[in-house]
Amino acid sequence: MPQDMPMIAPDPPDAPAFVLVRPQMGENIGAAARAMLNFGLTGLRVVDPRDGWPNPKAVAMASGAGRLLDAAGLFADTGAAVADCQMVFATTARARDLTKPVYTPEAAMAEARARIAAGQRVAVLFGPERTGLENDDIARANAIVSVPVNPDFPSLNLAQCVLLTGYEWRRQTDAPEGLRMEWAGSDPAPQIEIDRLVEHFEQRLEAAGFFFPAQTAEGMKRNLRNLWSRLPLSRADVQTFHGMLRQLVRRRDDAPPGGGRP
Amino acid sequence: MPQDMPMIAPDPPDAPAFVLVRPQMGENIGAAARAMLNFGLTGLRVVDPRDGWPNPKAVAMASGAGRLLDAAGLFADTGAAVADCQMVFATTARARDLTKPVYTPEAAMAEARARIAAGQRVAVLFGPERTGLENDDIARANAIVSVPVNPDFPSLNLAQCVLLTGYEWRRQTDAPEGLRMEWAGSDPAPQIEIDRLVEHFEQRLEAAGFFFPAQTAEGMKRNLRNLWSRLPLSRADVQTFHGMLRQLVRRRDDAPPGGGRP
Repeated sequence: MPQDMPMIAPDPPDAPAFVLVRPQMGENIGAAARAMLNFGLTGLRVVDPRDGWPNPKAVAMASGAGRLLDAAGLFADTGAAVADCQMVFATTARARDLTKPVYTPEAAMAEARARIAAGQRVAVLFGPERTGLENDDIARANAIVSVPVNPDFPSLNLAQCVLLTGYEWRRQTDAPEGLRMEWAGSDPAPQIEIDRLVEHFEQRLEAAGFFFPAQTAEGMKRNLRNLWSRLPLSRADVQTFHGMLRQLVRRRDDAPPGGGRP
Repeated sequence: MPQDMPMIAPDPPDAPAFVLVRPQMGENIGAAARAMLNFGLTGLRVVDPRDGWPNPKAVAMASGAGRLLDAAGLFADTGAAVADCQMVFATTARARDLTKPVYTPEAAMAEARARIAAGQRVAVLFGPERTGLENDDIARANAIVSVPVNPDFPSLNLAQCVLLTGYEWRRQTDAPEGLRMEWAGSDPAPQIEIDRLVEHFEQRLEAAGFFFPAQTAEGMKRNLRNLWSRLPLSRADVQTFHGMLRQLVRRRDDAPPGGGRP
C-alpha cells in the first residue's frame, strides 16, 4: 500500500499543514479534521494510517469537514510527508532525551506565521493516539511544540491537541478585536440623545425635589451626567428610559397616560 | 431536588469558576471536568443537570478529574450559581439580539485575571450541548465570550469550548516562556569548547588543503566559525563532532584507531 500512496500535498501554502502520523482510530482522524476546519485550516496530511485509507469511520466523524479527508495527502512515512517543508514542529509533551527548541503553541504559531510570510512551508506533526510521536519522528522535526498543560493532569487527546494548535493559528492571524460591542437591533445612541435623556431626568428629579440641599445640586447633577455617559446605551435603550420615566411620573402625579413628556 | 441543592461553591477564588448550565450528557460533564483540570482549573459549578447529581457517567468519563465533580457546587438555577460573582461571562456563538460587550477568549481571560486580582469573583457560563445558553442566562451575564471560529464551520462542543477557555486562562497566567531550549542529558557547550572544536576542524581542514586559494582562507575560516557559533551545541554534541572528525581523518590517512587528536 505505501507504494501506491500519492506523494503530493495540495494543501494551501498560506497556513501550516497538520500531519497525522500513524493515526489509529478513524473517529480521531475525523475529529481532528473537524477541529482543523473549526479554525479554517484545511491542509491535512496523513502518514501510514493504521486502518488504511480512505477510512469510513473518519468520514462519518468528520461530518461537514469531510472535504479535508478527500483532499488529504497520504504518505508512507513522516519524511515523505514533510519533504517540502522548511519548518517542522513536533507536538509532544516531553522532549524525550532529544536536544531541541521547545515552543509553546503561541510561539510556534507566531514562528509559523513568520515562516509562511517568508514563503516557507510549515508542518506540525501529531502522533498516534496512545503512544504519541516516536523519537525518529521528533528527530526529524526542527522544534517541539508543547501545550502548557497542568503537569499533574496532562491528558490531551489527538483532536484536542489539533484544536488548541488550530486555535492559536487563528487567534494570531484572523481573530476579531478582543472586545467589541454587539448592538443588537439598535445603534449606539448619539450624544445628543444622551443629553436629552439627562435633561429629562434632571427636570423630573428637580420637580420631585431630588436635588436637595441646593448647594449639592450641581455636584449631584454632574455625577448623574457622568453615570449616563458611561453607560453603553443604544437609541432603543434611551427611549426605554424616557418611557420608564414618563410612566413613573404619570403614576406619581396620577396624570393621564401619555403625560410627562419632557 | 432543587431544594436540596447546596448553595455553596467552595471553588478557589484565584481562578474563574466554570458553570455548566443545564448540561445533558454525563459524558460531556466528565469531559468538561477533564478539560478544566488539563489547565489547572478546579472551580466547577453545575446548574440543574438533566440527569440528576451525582452522575455516574460523568464520574466515569472524568477519570482522574473526578475530584472536580465531587467538589462541584450544584445549583437550581443560573442566578444562584453566579450570585457571588462580580463578573459573569456567557459563552455563545451569537449575541442573539442582546446588546452586550463581546470578548474573545483571550480578552475575556485578561479581564478575568484583572478582576480576580482586584478581589472579585468571576464566572464563565457554558450552555447545554444542543441548544446553548438561553437568552435568560445570557441576559444575566455582564458580557459574552465568543471563540473566533471559522464562520462556515463553527462546530465546537461543550468540552472543546471549556478546553479553549481553560487554555486561554493558563496561557495568560501560568504559561512557560514561549521558546526555550531543552538540553537533554547534556549542558550547552561553553564557548571555550566551541573554540576548540573550531580549531580542531581548522587544523584538519588546513592539513587537507581545504582553505584554497590562500587569499580566501581568512573569509572561509570566519564563515566556519560563524556556522559553529550559531549552532545550539551541547557539550555532548561537541564531543560527537570531535569524534567524527577524528574518525574521518583516521580513515583518510589510514592511521591507527585513536589517532587524529587535535
